[in-house]
Amino acid sequence: MSHYWSPFVHSLTPYVPGEQPKFANLVKLNTNENPYPPSPRAIAAMRREIGDDGASLRLYPDPNADCLRQAVVECFAEFALSAAHVFVAGNGSDEVLAHVFMALLRHGQPILLPDISYSFYPVYCGLYGIDSVRIPLDERFAIRVDDYARSNGGIVIANPNAPTGHPLPLGDVERLAAANLQSVVVIDEAYVDFGGTTAIGLIHRFPNLLVTRTLSKSHALAGLRIGYAIGDPALIEALDRVKNSFNSFPLDRVAIAGAAAALSDREYLEKTRRAVMRSRAALTGHLERLGFDVLPSAANFIFVRHPRRDAADLAAQLRQRGIIVRHFKQPRIDQHLRITIGTDAQCDLLVAALKEILE
Amino acid sequence: MSHYWSPFVHSLTPYVPGEQPKFANLVKLNTNENPYPPSPRAIAAMRREIGDDGASLRLYPDPNADCLRQAVVECFAEFALSAAHVFVAGNGSDEVLAHVFMALLRHGQPILLPDISYSFYPVYCGLYGIDSVRIPLDERFAIRVDDYARSNGGIVIANPNAPTGHPLPLGDVERLAAANLQSVVVIDEAYVDFGGTTAIGLIHRFPNLLVTRTLSKSHALAGLRIGYAIGDPALIEALDRVKNSFNSFPLDRVAIAGAAAALSDREYLEKTRRAVMRSRAALTGHLERLGFDVLPSAANFIFVRHPRRDAADLAAQLRQRGIIVRHFKQPRIDQHLRITIGTDAQCDLLVAALKEILE
Repeated sequence: MSHYWSPFVHSLTPYVPGEQPKFANLVKLNTNENPYPPSPRAIAAMRREIGDDGASLRLYPDPNADCLRQAVVECFAEFALSAAHVFVAGNGSDEVLAHVFMALLRHGQPILLPDISYSFYPVYCGLYGIDSVRIPLDERFAIRVDDYARSNGGIVIANPNAPTGHPLPLGDVERLAAANLQSVVVIDEAYVDFGGTTAIGLIHRFPNLLVTRTLSKSHALAGLRIGYAIGDPALIEALDRVKNSFNSFPLDRVAIAGAAAALSDREYLEKTRRAVMRSRAALTGHLERLGFDVLPSAANFIFVRHPRRDAADLAAQLRQRGIIVRHFKQPRIDQHLRITIGTDAQCDLLVAALKEILE
Repeated sequence: MSHYWSPFVHSLTPYVPGEQPKFANLVKLNTNENPYPPSPRAIAAMRREIGDDGASLRLYPDPNADCLRQAVVECFAEFALSAAHVFVAGNGSDEVLAHVFMALLRHGQPILLPDISYSFYPVYCGLYGIDSVRIPLDERFAIRVDDYARSNGGIVIANPNAPTGHPLPLGDVERLAAANLQSVVVIDEAYVDFGGTTAIGLIHRFPNLLVTRTLSKSHALAGLRIGYAIGDPALIEALDRVKNSFNSFPLDRVAIAGAAAALSDREYLEKTRRAVMRSRAALTGHLERLGFDVLPSAANFIFVRHPRRDAADLAAQLRQRGIIVRHFKQPRIDQHLRITIGTDAQCDLLVAALKEILE
């Protein structure tokens, strides 16, 4: 606390990300990273941008990252996007979401959020002075869109939801957008490539629908920090206005080059996301045989509980064995663990450790 | 305009950066980039981080970028900093400054800015709803610190100032900090390595003094987007709280690695900044012989006017000859041009073109 702080800083409750341990040899299943490396095409593009002597790095990047915008357009050719539908200027979808909250969700009316969802959403509300109403998931941890039928300053939903992995059917997203034409509906598709259905195709019909995306998960580039958003040009213009009043060049040259190349490699995405989904099915089976309840997941993680074991205790025992998973000390879910899908070898280590613990 | 925009978005006036042309063969003297490439040590570190297959990039970066924080501490060993004095989480000092305005300058009272300075400062005021009072530079475009002796919610000064290149003596910074212990004094040292005097040594005595820095200029890494700030731990804590409510991981892995290595290469910095200063002296002489008034500069640019030629017209004629410089359509300085110091070969091309134009 300090009288130099802007007053609102005293009441901020910053987001606490999952641990990024600095020592190796841990089986790291706590922050939903991809178990596979990024596309070789992305690596080659980054090396090319750096070149022999990094001469291009002395120059500012393209402030509009047009080549990356174009890569997004081409990546979703089936949805007939133009560059005006794409906002690309964020270091991870976290930064894109921050700009979304500021540019599109500050209307003086509370926004609607699921009670259990990505825990950064309420942090943005705190940062920008936005009120929120938390709508409870149903008893099976699903989102019921009818529960969102109330006056609001915007709605933010992760699809698939985190940490539950629950996917919202496209018809439900459509109903939500149609029922809320007076406010912005944000669908956070960070995990959609692992089994969800994207709402990008709906943006031409719903000027209030914004889809956010990241390269941190399915493109295995969490370390490069790239997010983007897709929506009606008027929504994108608001995001660009805020971004250009915050930082002209948020994305660096190496990141722009790597991200554009990663998006162009559809085949690699297909191969790795299918591998993750196969591992998810296998791990789900193993854990069910150990007595866990496993929620059906369309993401690269599963959300599980054991009817007879305390979740925090299980997490601590796994950690003693060099395996880290995520436990949230939060009402309704404090007996659950969120486990990232690793390689099959990592999943096997997890299953073996759990067997030992449960014996 | 759209009713989906948060109301303040309608009145935003975003910053307009200097042109980043997409075609080559221009002599680009408009955005104060370094004419030399970055340190070879930085290039090697970036290549190492990417590795053979980019495997590290699938993992999130260190949210605190501790190795970069430590590199800043070691870079300024003479000032006995600790990691708690350093904020490293910004994509260029633009992002650091954005967080500074939000975290430390929103007190309901107007902040003080020079009438002629970095034109992003008033944009941040617009973004965060901060009032400002513009204090005129004196008739020689110098900052008179006595003019800042008035009640304020903070003071922001670039030292050396941009676009004038004028350096503020350390004694003046000290007087300013001492006279404003009730508010935060921000010294933006983006250009300090080209002939200014840093105020970092004062932060132990003045808990209200914050120094911001960038690797975009003297470290030739504009394309990598790295800025940082140095000040009392209480000021840094406010910045960390805002950053951690905005984006846990703003800096990517490649940028962290490159920036830390660049900061460690003091010898390369010394060599290149001296080369720029030598070229500045030579260019100043050439332009004075062509009849230009050249303000004394402690930055990697000069601010010039020709007593008999319109500045916008000169800029247009230079552009026709493939040379771009920066002209600001702004009261008091619309007859000036800001010219980045290029390589000697680039400076020679500029001088030859101006000779031709002035003939």
